[in-house]
Amino acid sequence: MSDLADKVIRCCRDIAGMTEEPGRTTRTFLSPPMRDVHSYLRAWMQDLGMKVRIDAAGNIRGIHGDPGQPRIMIGSHLDTVPDAGAFDGILGVAIGIALVEMKPKTAVEVIGFSEEEGVRFRKPFIGSRALIGDTDWGDPAIDEAIRAYGLNPGELPAARFEPQNTAYLEFHIEQGPVLETLGLPLGVVDAIAGQSRYILTFEGRANHAGTTPMALRRDALVAAAHWITEVERYASAHQGLVATVGSLCVSPNAGNVIPGEVRASLDIRHASDAIRRHAATHLLSRASAPHEQLLDQNAVEMDAAMSHALAAAVASAGYPVHRMTSGAGHDAMVIAPHIPSAMLFLRSPGGISHHPDELALPEDVDAALETGIKCLTS
Amino acid sequence: MSDLADKVIRCCRDIAGMTEEPGRTTRTFLSPPMRDVHSYLRAWMQDLGMKVRIDAAGNIRGIHGDPGQPRIMIGSHLDTVPDAGAFDGILGVAIGIALVEMKPKTAVEVIGFSEEEGVRFRKPFIGSRALIGDTDWGDPAIDEAIRAYGLNPGELPAARFEPQNTAYLEFHIEQGPVLETLGLPLGVVDAIAGQSRYILTFEGRANHAGTTPMALRRDALVAAAHWITEVERYASAHQGLVATVGSLCVSPNAGNVIPGEVRASLDIRHASDAIRRHAATHLLSRASAPHEQLLDQNAVEMDAAMSHALAAAVASAGYPVHRMTSGAGHDAMVIAPHIPSAMLFLRSPGGISHHPDELALPEDVDAALETGIKCLTS
Repeated sequence: MSDLADKVIRCCRDIAGMTEEPGRTTRTFLSPPMRDVHSYLRAWMQDLGMKVRIDAAGNIRGIHGDPGQPRIMIGSHLDTVPDAGAFDGILGVAIGIALVEMKPKTAVEVIGFSEEEGVRFRKPFIGSRALIGDTDWGDPAIDEAIRAYGLNPGELPAARFEPQNTAYLEFHIEQGPVLETLGLPLGVVDAIAGQSRYILTFEGRANHAGTTPMALRRDALVAAAHWITEVERYASAHQGLVATVGSLCVSPNAGNVIPGEVRASLDIRHASDAIRRHAATHLLSRASAPHEQLLDQNAVEMDAAMSHALAAAVASAGYPVHRMTSGAGHDAMVIAPHIPSAMLFLRSPGGISHHPDELALPEDVDAALETGIKCLTS
Repeated sequence: MSDLADKVIRCCRDIAGMTEEPGRTTRTFLSPPMRDVHSYLRAWMQDLGMKVRIDAAGNIRGIHGDPGQPRIMIGSHLDTVPDAGAFDGILGVAIGIALVEMKPKTAVEVIGFSEEEGVRFRKPFIGSRALIGDTDWGDPAIDEAIRAYGLNPGELPAARFEPQNTAYLEFHIEQGPVLETLGLPLGVVDAIAGQSRYILTFEGRANHAGTTPMALRRDALVAAAHWITEVERYASAHQGLVATVGSLCVSPNAGNVIPGEVRASLDIRHASDAIRRHAATHLLSRASAPHEQLLDQNAVEMDAAMSHALAAAVASAGYPVHRMTSGAGHDAMVIAPHIPSAMLFLRSPGGISHHPDELALPEDVDAALETGIKCLTS
């Protein structure tokens, strides 16, 4: 089986060379290198006898088996962030094709979504949204890009699910350190965490750092610092919760002036929407700073029966079963509310992703293929 | 006496209109509006029978009394920060001339230093440095600017102290909130605080804010936040100490990425060099972050006997005596190591300085004039 894992990894490495920027991997929605990606994958799929099309959203779709029969969709996305690694997204597409190469009994539709990262138009999930019929993009430039690629936005309705699409399975690198820390190759995703994002504005009074005694200061950064320590304490004390102050802008940001204003981001995620909202309420109340909410996105649960079957396949393939929450969004988040969906994470060495050092280990790809083929024959 | 205080304030307001930038007050070293300042002050001094010259550093100097007799210098600076108020610096020059208008028995040399703020060439104290013979500027552009103004850098030696310059007295707005908080018009400056400045680099590991559990993070901003709260706690617990983190640069500074690096400034000031250095050692040791020292400037004490006489004059004029440390640098810092020097602060309403809202109250100018004339007749 190791030859096939090598082929999957070679596919990812080859496609990493298809880029808008020489010397690094950057491949956004329907950009010129996406044609090479389509050609590469089409060739592999046609070698296996699959029926291949590019739908009007730029998704590549290849069917194995009788198109009239119910089939499981297996896929992930083709696009990347700027200066990306070689595995985020494309690994799940390559594993899908490799599973077809293993000649499963079940009918399969492998799908490579044209867009998930939201880089080109700041709208993520263009590819998967086409499958659920959510093509009111809010930006005419997206239809324009579709036309410029030689596709027809008028045919977007034909990109929607067919009744034969009965389930969706996504393989993806974890993009975090949990599986590596546990020494495990695979993780079954129970849910994709909900997210709350805020911007808080701490208001103080800018003043001379030399002439203003400590007792007469209103230092916005000191106020923000106390709050940041509370964000970290609270999140660490609640199982499964992550809360991050990733961005901080200090004004006037001069060494000899007491900070008069600090704008801080807050990102909170949890698989339980109730726990996430409770955390947000608590942390905002501890800030005594006005805030603006940027995002309030509910958690998305994977299908329980399908996740159970996936976990059974992991065990049957001889690997320990670890069930986990995804802290990042994935195409499965868009698909899961419409058809039963499941996700399998592969270990990310060093927890590294969105970076050229991103990796997938051949033995973990083997584990994923062994698990996947058991799913497709059970 | 109030007419004279009004004249002082009118002088400051008039000169605030002499600016490089229409609509706001910005007047840097030997910039074109400095010619108008020189003309304005020369006219007032000549009206009073003073002998006036512009020395080769661009300082305006007017002598009242016999130039062969010992005389007290009274001065401050003529230049401003960008978008300045009307009183920082120039008030001390105007008070010096107003004191001559009060016909003191003592000989007086009023000096308006051409440069203190360090804005034009990032070198502060160009004017006062010329008096102590420290004219190795380290930037040939400064001599060039002197020449462009029509002065001769070759004559800088003639700008040095003369043996008759036996003492230096500087009136200046406090630029802080202490006198206002105490409800006092005047403060006698015992010392100008020493300063330590550092940049610290907190190193963490940038990672995905959604996929990295709290326990597996190395968040550089959380580390910096804990330290900032300690800076504030420690400084607040030590009398007369101020410590400020005014600047913080977070990298990559994105809401959904755990901060991988934070660069923070640290500014520490105290009248005691030992206390300041002890504070620096403690606070740096609490950071576990590499640091770079940008400044280590010792405190400068004012002359004890002269400060005592100044305090006696404040009391004799009928005002409460408050002795304090200056947290900001002033020309007196350059002069004091060479001739006996003293400084008198005037209350800054709102503690506001380096801002168009900067003020000096007419009654406080009266208090300063009453104090000053007692110094010059005692």
